[in-house]
Amino acid sequence: MSTIPHSLIREFPEPEITLAEWTRTMKRSVLREMLAVVSRPGILSFAGGLPDPKLFPVKEFAEAVSQVLASDAKALQYGPPFLPLKRHIVALMAQRGVICSEDQVFITTGAQQALNVLTHLFLNDGGQVLIEELVYSGIQQAIAPFNPDILTVTTDLQQGMDVDKVEVHLLAGSRPSFLYAISEAHNPLGVTLSRDRKQQLVALARQYGLPIIEDDPYGLLRYESSAASPMRALDEEWVFYVGSFSKILAPALRLGWIVAPEFLVSKLTVIKESSDLETSAFIQRSVSAYLDAGHLPAHLDRLRQTYRLRRDTMLEAMAREFPPSARWTRPTGGMFIWVELPGHVDTAQLLWPAVEELQVAFIPGTAFEATAGSNRTDAGHRAKNCLRLNFSNCSPDTIEEGIGRLGTLLHKYC
Amino acid sequence: MSTIPHSLIREFPEPEITLAEWTRTMKRSVLREMLAVVSRPGILSFAGGLPDPKLFPVKEFAEAVSQVLASDAKALQYGPPFLPLKRHIVALMAQRGVICSEDQVFITTGAQQALNVLTHLFLNDGGQVLIEELVYSGIQQAIAPFNPDILTVTTDLQQGMDVDKVEVHLLAGSRPSFLYAISEAHNPLGVTLSRDRKQQLVALARQYGLPIIEDDPYGLLRYESSAASPMRALDEEWVFYVGSFSKILAPALRLGWIVAPEFLVSKLTVIKESSDLETSAFIQRSVSAYLDAGHLPAHLDRLRQTYRLRRDTMLEAMAREFPPSARWTRPTGGMFIWVELPGHVDTAQLLWPAVEELQVAFIPGTAFEATAGSNRTDAGHRAKNCLRLNFSNCSPDTIEEGIGRLGTLLHKYC
Repeated sequence: MSTIPHSLIREFPEPEITLAEWTRTMKRSVLREMLAVVSRPGILSFAGGLPDPKLFPVKEFAEAVSQVLASDAKALQYGPPFLPLKRHIVALMAQRGVICSEDQVFITTGAQQALNVLTHLFLNDGGQVLIEELVYSGIQQAIAPFNPDILTVTTDLQQGMDVDKVEVHLLAGSRPSFLYAISEAHNPLGVTLSRDRKQQLVALARQYGLPIIEDDPYGLLRYESSAASPMRALDEEWVFYVGSFSKILAPALRLGWIVAPEFLVSKLTVIKESSDLETSAFIQRSVSAYLDAGHLPAHLDRLRQTYRLRRDTMLEAMAREFPPSARWTRPTGGMFIWVELPGHVDTAQLLWPAVEELQVAFIPGTAFEATAGSNRTDAGHRAKNCLRLNFSNCSPDTIEEGIGRLGTLLHKYC
Repeated sequence: MSTIPHSLIREFPEPEITLAEWTRTMKRSVLREMLAVVSRPGILSFAGGLPDPKLFPVKEFAEAVSQVLASDAKALQYGPPFLPLKRHIVALMAQRGVICSEDQVFITTGAQQALNVLTHLFLNDGGQVLIEELVYSGIQQAIAPFNPDILTVTTDLQQGMDVDKVEVHLLAGSRPSFLYAISEAHNPLGVTLSRDRKQQLVALARQYGLPIIEDDPYGLLRYESSAASPMRALDEEWVFYVGSFSKILAPALRLGWIVAPEFLVSKLTVIKESSDLETSAFIQRSVSAYLDAGHLPAHLDRLRQTYRLRRDTMLEAMAREFPPSARWTRPTGGMFIWVELPGHVDTAQLLWPAVEELQVAFIPGTAFEATAGSNRTDAGHRAKNCLRLNFSNCSPDTIEEGIGRLGTLLHKYC
């Protein structure tokens, strides 16, 4: 056989590129698409899920980075997970009421990688998962490549996930590969799973051998004095805890973690290596140096005070400006308030006049439906009359102004 | 239904955790396991694939980081791929003889993520891939979760991948989802694919509709004056180029890129979001600031000079110290020399006396066999009598000393 002259090639019929099957039906996250649309200068936005960059501890982090680069020869090299960072994470977990060891802490490139790695650990192609009808889009993105069979449960806006419905699925014989829960300050609903329901869910997990992925990005952003430990504090065998520095330090660190049974860490390592070899030693050491310097407690206090004021400002403005037919959650932490309007309202249709006429943005509830981007078609628009508001990334003045504008709009349509 | 009291739970039979099927057969990369074993203080190691950390541009990178943190409010926030970095990558590609646009550049969290994302783009569960018998372990890690059917071809130590064998597979009717190639300074073999074979391979890709993943981490680490463009310079439709800052700046940046047809970038974005949402804006902006300052050309010159000297030192020492029955490659770039010993020698059995008695380490050839960690069992130990030496992370003195020790050992066993 010899080289085929280039000039001859075009005489063959032109082949078309063949992609993996799931790429035919893949969709961009509806949420991410909407965020791209409403992220225009001049728009007063309650749409994103962004922490306020003005609150990032830039100076202290820059000091930590300088110190690491000046003194630590291994900071820019390949390297194993950084043990001192794991020790800091163990201490953070203790603040959340969770006792764990460094050997149970698995460092990830952000919480999304944690969801991705855990999905690979549990889910087979075409396998079954159990999630809430209204749910953070990142878990849907993590499971989509598996073409999953998605079981859903509803969520009570006072108590959280409907755990009785979880039991109904299990009693009916379903054995999902895992259940996904955001037990504290739910995104998008703002609700916290009640203590009773946490216990009930953990009991079901043990009885049926159901792994729980407990996503807890907002657990350290709590604005009430009452404590609420995550489910991982109740069970270390079935609860796989996911933590993140994105909301308590900064998203661009791309640094998160899993707390998992130690015997599974070697499998998580293989999955992670397949994904990105390892998480940046530079970032791990820089964040560890920032934590060494003891800055975090004061920083968390400042975040909580600032975000609490913004939450309160938004709730008060809503009470004043929104029509009486609107209902909303009162989150004890996190970044989001969920609003229900009368059943005839379609918030996706409100978004256009909101952005174009009033220069204010939110995310329509349908963006969080478990159907979006999956192969499920039977749920359909359970959140058509709902919307999500973010309060973390606007000053109180901006919140007052934006809620006033939204109120004007809602009075017209509700 | 009511909460199940915790005290009752233990009366149920204890369920066992069910993991995804592929986790049963998953193996840690043999290479990574070996590296862990031989990475002991006091060992003179030619085992790893590490750049020399003493050559990292720490001071200039620290300046870039400080500048970014002091002046760029978006540096620590979520954000889209950073366009100025894409422009720098377009310029780097031009240095490699590749003309591409910013819209064809896709930023990744290191080259491993690029391999992972491209694998998801092309490969179905149980699908077929075509790789060399001796190959970088990262591609095997990327494909392992798909339980792939692995076709292999041999590699000529002078000319690179046996492209005629590729055609044999295609003529026999195989239609692999992609072919993986390291066309410049192959890891582990150190060979560069000849210009003729590059053209022949691209012609086959076009004729049969075979996507080529061209992994090029060492393309800018070339120690000879003669130029050799990658296959992406010959074809922009079928060649998916993977680049990395790990070897030319520092691994802990975890920053790489793909050059792909523009119409596929949105699909790559969905796959990447599922994996880790996005690559650190902080890292992207810091590297871009480093490149803005114009440091890279002088830095690359220094890397090339230093590594060229080390390669030459190692080759000269091998010629002096190794037994006449040993053969090895003379790489024109990169970091590795491949050694073939007489057929009766088993280099895995040499590793123990090398490390324990002589405190010198290498990687046995079998660690790179396409069988390792896959479901293939028919290839078996084609590299039993081979070993890989790394020359980038030792001073010339250390290289002389270590090759002397290895020579003593080889004279005993060859």
